Amino acid sequence: MNALPSFEQVRDAAARIAPHARVTPVLRSAALDALAGAELHFKAEHLQRGGAFKFRGACNAVWSLSDEQAARGVVTHSSGNHGNALALAAATRGIAAHVVVPEGAVRAKLEAIERAGAILHRCAPTQAAREAMCAEVQRATGAELVHPYADTRVMAGQGTLVLELLQQAPGLDALITPVGGGGLASGVAIAAHAMNPALSLFGAEPLGADDAAQSLAHGTRVTTVVPDTVCDGLRALVGERNLDALRTHHVEVITVSDAETIAAMRLLWTELKQVVEVSSATVLAAILKQPQRFAGRRVGVVLTGGNVDLQALPW
Amino acid sequence: MNALPSFEQVRDAAARIAPHARVTPVLRSAALDALAGAELHFKAEHLQRGGAFKFRGACNAVWSLSDEQAARGVVTHSSGNHGNALALAAATRGIAAHVVVPEGAVRAKLEAIERAGAILHRCAPTQAAREAMCAEVQRATGAELVHPYADTRVMAGQGTLVLELLQQAPGLDALITPVGGGGLASGVAIAAHAMNPALSLFGAEPLGADDAAQSLAHGTRVTTVVPDTVCDGLRALVGERNLDALRTHHVEVITVSDAETIAAMRLLWTELKQVVEVSSATVLAAILKQPQRFAGRRVGVVLTGGNVDLQALPW
Repeated sequence: MNALPSFEQVRDAAARIAPHARVTPVLRSAALDALAGAELHFKAEHLQRGGAFKFRGACNAVWSLSDEQAARGVVTHSSGNHGNALALAAATRGIAAHVVVPEGAVRAKLEAIERAGAILHRCAPTQAAREAMCAEVQRATGAELVHPYADTRVMAGQGTLVLELLQQAPGLDALITPVGGGGLASGVAIAAHAMNPALSLFGAEPLGADDAAQSLAHGTRVTTVVPDTVCDGLRALVGERNLDALRTHHVEVITVSDAETIAAMRLLWTELKQVVEVSSATVLAAILKQPQRFAGRRVGVVLTGGNVDLQALPW
Repeated sequence: MNALPSFEQVRDAAARIAPHARVTPVLRSAALDALAGAELHFKAEHLQRGGAFKFRGACNAVWSLSDEQAARGVVTHSSGNHGNALALAAATRGIAAHVVVPEGAVRAKLEAIERAGAILHRCAPTQAAREAMCAEVQRATGAELVHPYADTRVMAGQGTLVLELLQQAPGLDALITPVGGGGLASGVAIAAHAMNPALSLFGAEPLGADDAAQSLAHGTRVTTVVPDTVCDGLRALVGERNLDALRTHHVEVITVSDAETIAAMRLLWTELKQVVEVSSATVLAAILKQPQRFAGRRVGVVLTGGNVDLQALPW
């Protein structure tokens, strides 16, 4: 259930979600290009349904179910965007969505999940509490678990954005995504290298949740990191299979401080004119932190989400 | 020099600016459609070069000049986006741009004008002082005046966005733009009705600068309004020819309070995920204020600019 998807599964996912998902635009900024010394092609997944790329994976999972499975609904645990995405995806098939949310999640995101029609189940903000509550809902309802990142269907769905991006911005040399649990980074890596093995792949990770960078450096999965970052979308530990994909596809993970990310977020707001959430800004922060890796190259930059509480901006 | 442009002049302008201007995307939001009870197609001119539609008109004016005229440079008076646009347009031709700026203009906009390479000339914030300073620069340099809205080349340039929009969003029933000096509204009206005479045309104007609405109601140009609105881009009095175009093309002007505009701005930030300036939000405010005029229709909505000071948000 959490094996890495093949490229064929990514292509199948693209066909499956096409009636429901948006083809998001690719945006440019002359000012940001000048600042980076590179050609940046921003894939605007914050303009995806539900305001984040997560709809792709959730939608693929929901429409992969048999009618019999679907009738029992879906369940997940998510601090925000995946929960919202699963609720919206379930609504496209008219089935129930149960979302386990940890205390302390962003209020605006919880409200969006409820508006999308999901049933919320609150729990303590620990991995153990989330999983226990999920298991309880599964027992009670028979709902299918759709894990936020350690799920083949979810990874395949996230990878579909690459099919669009490489067509919208031909001739890219490199791609960069944020790294949280690794669902996006792994799906993107698999699809990207299937289409163009010469692409350089990068990930951006908050210093305060740098378990993927540590895991790649040590050659073994580090699970002792206690996340301490303003990037609420990137606090999850990278999944085991997800980490395998990062390793196999030589994804170089660049770590950035929260201050660097917040400065990059301001740039995305003022120069690209896009309301993106803080986790999305790690990618620009990484490019500006290590410009020599990107200098003169054509870089696809994935903006992951735009669900922001305007009353709680980080500056 | 300030006669209304023909549709042919709009088409010529489109060809003239094509090497320099961006084809801006059209954005959608399911949440805003639901709120409005209409299908809203947002033409994202805040993603135009310089962060506003103004680049279209300025670029057309600059590239309409003979080599001899161009060598003496261009001059304008502008509280912000037009000045910036003229500076950027002049740079595409390698000529000098002089920009007369009134005291009290938005700091972020002035900085952008200087970054674009223009020579700033400061004056008192009155129409008379602006015009006097402009005349002085013209005498001293021989520069060509490019008025922000009462200029045929500028109006034709602004109208070019309609050529894109009607192709990007086929089957529109109505269009709405903000109304300040009327350069945008008049250019759009001329191009729109040349392409589809059945289109309903609307303008959105701040209550505190409602000279166009008053002028249309009284059948004569009202010049006594003292602007009092947070919409810094819409404080100019509507031009005489511009008003003629609004009248001829039956543009219905809807007035909105600053509070309504600020609420709409928040919606554009949170739902459409776009950093637009407050003047841009008048259009959504107008639609939400008079929903019966738009119910069930396919509406083209022009978002005019995105040059915002994040330290001085109006909420």
